[in-house]
Amino acid sequence: MNGDLARLHALDSERMHLSRAAAALRWDQETYLPPLGVEDRAEQLAVVEGLAHEKLINPEIGELLDRLGFEPDTAANGAAGSGPGAAAANAGAAIDGAANAGAAALAGPDLPALERDFVRVLGRDYRRAVQLPPDFVRECARTEGLSQAAWADARKNSDFAAFAPHLERLIVLARQKAEYWGWGGPAASGGGPNSAYDGLLDFHEPGLGAERIAALFGPLRKRLSALLAKIAAAPPPEDAFLHRRYDVRRQGAFCREVLAGLGFDRRRARLDRSAHPFTTTLGFNDVRITTRYQETDPLPGLFSVIHEGGHAFYELSLDPALRSSCLAEGVSMGIHESQSRLWENVIGRSRAFWRGWFPRFKTYFASPLKGVDVEQFYRAVNRVFPSPVRVEADEVSYSLHVILRFELEQRLFDGTLTVRELPEAWNAAMKDSLGIEPKDDAEGVLQDVHWSMGAFGYFPSYVLGNLYGLQFWEKLREAVPDTGAALEKRDYDAVHTWLREKIQCFGRRLSPGELLLGVTGKELSADPFVRYLEEKYTDLYGI
Amino acid sequence: MNGDLARLHALDSERMHLSRAAAALRWDQETYLPPLGVEDRAEQLAVVEGLAHEKLINPEIGELLDRLGFEPDTAANGAAGSGPGAAAANAGAAIDGAANAGAAALAGPDLPALERDFVRVLGRDYRRAVQLPPDFVRECARTEGLSQAAWADARKNSDFAAFAPHLERLIVLARQKAEYWGWGGPAASGGGPNSAYDGLLDFHEPGLGAERIAALFGPLRKRLSALLAKIAAAPPPEDAFLHRRYDVRRQGAFCREVLAGLGFDRRRARLDRSAHPFTTTLGFNDVRITTRYQETDPLPGLFSVIHEGGHAFYELSLDPALRSSCLAEGVSMGIHESQSRLWENVIGRSRAFWRGWFPRFKTYFASPLKGVDVEQFYRAVNRVFPSPVRVEADEVSYSLHVILRFELEQRLFDGTLTVRELPEAWNAAMKDSLGIEPKDDAEGVLQDVHWSMGAFGYFPSYVLGNLYGLQFWEKLREAVPDTGAALEKRDYDAVHTWLREKIQCFGRRLSPGELLLGVTGKELSADPFVRYLEEKYTDLYGI
Repeated sequence: MNGDLARLHALDSERMHLSRAAAALRWDQETYLPPLGVEDRAEQLAVVEGLAHEKLINPEIGELLDRLGFEPDTAANGAAGSGPGAAAANAGAAIDGAANAGAAALAGPDLPALERDFVRVLGRDYRRAVQLPPDFVRECARTEGLSQAAWADARKNSDFAAFAPHLERLIVLARQKAEYWGWGGPAASGGGPNSAYDGLLDFHEPGLGAERIAALFGPLRKRLSALLAKIAAAPPPEDAFLHRRYDVRRQGAFCREVLAGLGFDRRRARLDRSAHPFTTTLGFNDVRITTRYQETDPLPGLFSVIHEGGHAFYELSLDPALRSSCLAEGVSMGIHESQSRLWENVIGRSRAFWRGWFPRFKTYFASPLKGVDVEQFYRAVNRVFPSPVRVEADEVSYSLHVILRFELEQRLFDGTLTVRELPEAWNAAMKDSLGIEPKDDAEGVLQDVHWSMGAFGYFPSYVLGNLYGLQFWEKLREAVPDTGAALEKRDYDAVHTWLREKIQCFGRRLSPGELLLGVTGKELSADPFVRYLEEKYTDLYGI
Repeated sequence: MNGDLARLHALDSERMHLSRAAAALRWDQETYLPPLGVEDRAEQLAVVEGLAHEKLINPEIGELLDRLGFEPDTAANGAAGSGPGAAAANAGAAIDGAANAGAAALAGPDLPALERDFVRVLGRDYRRAVQLPPDFVRECARTEGLSQAAWADARKNSDFAAFAPHLERLIVLARQKAEYWGWGGPAASGGGPNSAYDGLLDFHEPGLGAERIAALFGPLRKRLSALLAKIAAAPPPEDAFLHRRYDVRRQGAFCREVLAGLGFDRRRARLDRSAHPFTTTLGFNDVRITTRYQETDPLPGLFSVIHEGGHAFYELSLDPALRSSCLAEGVSMGIHESQSRLWENVIGRSRAFWRGWFPRFKTYFASPLKGVDVEQFYRAVNRVFPSPVRVEADEVSYSLHVILRFELEQRLFDGTLTVRELPEAWNAAMKDSLGIEPKDDAEGVLQDVHWSMGAFGYFPSYVLGNLYGLQFWEKLREAVPDTGAALEKRDYDAVHTWLREKIQCFGRRLSPGELLLGVTGKELSADPFVRYLEEKYTDLYGI
């Protein structure tokens, strides 16, 4: 390895270790931190994350990148450089050949493929970081901190007006951030290609702009609404037995047994409890997931465990060659969600899965499940019911919650909707799309934390995850034809192997579009997802 | 506050936050880290602790200290500057007047007392750090890492020869470190005043040298041996009931009830399990303690909880004015042990304590304690039995284990004992002092981790803690005359208040000697400790 490259790796791994240390502090904050410890913890995080940022914007990194032939992609060519089509010919091939085509233009062609990918991805991270002035970074952090607290209060009191000025400021800052990154600005402030909102979408899901997402989500919304209407006309399955008493300690024990059965390796990962389930990576062999249990419903705890387990499987399947580098992470929110939602929904809510697990589940909960058979249980697990709250939504209506947020975000950023008008627009969209009227803003526009953290353009990832996931799943079913039988036997090896080799091992080496095209030979599409839902729910509801 | 002082506080608190972050990573490593996560964790710790060290040796700190009037104490005047007598007249007074006399000579007299203490203590930390060349610091870290692994293997195989070369190297480095700090060196290498070993002792317990410790420990050893001999001639109490089955989950629940009863504030502290009990401070309102449970003996888990709880009470009782500064820690290992051992032994193994708790204990363990009354239990708790292993020793013989280590350390550093001769010397001393022959080196010279970590001069703290503790306790009993009755009622408020106001609130503002002289008006003495043991065990054994 040449000296410049070795030095660049050393600088990168140092800041990665700092980021992982910060992740450990954040994990502790959500799981075990004594309540009054939060104040000092905030200071510690500010110091550690500040140093991690400082290490990333180190000018020496910029010089090394230059010498190694890194050429920044601009917002204008970014979609082409990182989007589908760029390197797809080689995606999915053996890792040493990965991303040849796309990488050659961006980092010295005399480097091995892995190193070219490293230089390209670190270069992009470096550019994104140095494009933001330090004062602006500090102002964002301060505003987001205050806004999150204000949002929590506003939600408690269902008082949108108290949160509105914060949201307005957050939108100004988000737009400014996108402009620093080269998106939007006066010439493109009215939306359209290369608007600020495109830049925010690109941050979470490189290579997809608002127009492309809208072209997918519009028809998807119609098809889901049609399916929902049919389901609403059919008699709902019995599910009273899900609301009996399910001892929380036993839920935990069952979740651990399921995780072990799914191949969750306790030498490299662990499960804890927190107020909101999440997954975080603390090291190459250290991934933490969390869940929370409800005594009167065993499903939320379990499906959170499987969902977060799906995120963990991705992080635990990275090529060891990526260890401690900026490549050692899932490539995007959307691809990450494709893995978690595939495990949670496509596998975890399938008939085959429950044929495998229901007998075990009954040994933990014989009393509340007395007289219930696996088919009844499977139907109850997949009951479709309208809810005003996204995180409580069933598999069919879930995406409609997300599409609603995407459409409102678009309008907030193209100037056709003001923050003051947002609650009314929210309620109208909710009524139109799901037939639901939230009882107040707390269960309406204020329900999610994302906007208060300045995370605009994040929501679409959830639906993109569904789309990627089913495109992957169709290919997996072709490659592993007896998947259903394996799931019934609780044998997940072939599924893990295929996901690891085709998708997970690459980390950030391949862009989402490259991955998708390499694996499926196709562009992003909602068809497999809708096909999957239509088949499953036609069967379930006899419609 | 003047600008220099404000800047010094900012630099100090930044590195304190990094140190606390490192403490959080170490706590996690001992409690929840997945086994294969250790490798990345080591890298994270190296980065975070390396940065904390870098922040401490920042030359700007040196310049600010100079401008603020800090004058380094040297090894030669160190004992006078930080030892008893320097500032004792004001010790124990209201905190704003603390340490006036001693501080005036060391930091600008125009600063408020608290700030003078801050400058003096940070100055001492800074000096200690910059006196060690960076290459030497790295070599120590590497050698200690390798030696700890070698020690663990050597202990497993009871193979001292495999550990001996590591121990030789560790002693060379420890001597070198003391010399960098201005102790020992060619002129004083043969021991005597200001030898390298004095420097190592001073690091753990400022102000006490080997000569002074030897003058205390020699007579103490004789008196403890005499007491032990008398006890050995008396019939031992019944304790078979302690070796029945004590459900580990119930032990945990009882420990939590005891901790709560003792005033352990779960908003600021928590208890977890680890292989070896410890206490660590992660923030002003974040202190973590750990314990481990044995199913066939309920005492080790419980007394570890009370011992570590004692450490935690100290850290949680600091004056809020010290928050986030280098002053916000217990002042020394010896004073820390005085608090933990006072809670564990003097309070936790007292008749009054068990009169308060035994009825509760019996509700957790009715079956194994059937027919046992509080007096029988109290006698069993305090059973004296010879053990080759320090951490399993009773209250009377414990100090003999430590004195043995101190005497061997002295000889290793003054050149009258080589590492090769150490096992034989260990066994001879064990026979002489406790009448025990270890069955092998694993339960003899290899039993403790300390030396493999390069911690020489650390062991004496455990006995110094006993001495300080009983000197404090005698004063506390005078000030709070009805302590016994309060303990029987499980009322610890007056004890906490006295310890907090007289000792704990000061953090590092007062040296151990200043604290002791301020509180008791006396120099360090073994008399109260021996008096306590003689009274307690004469009663217990009817001797």
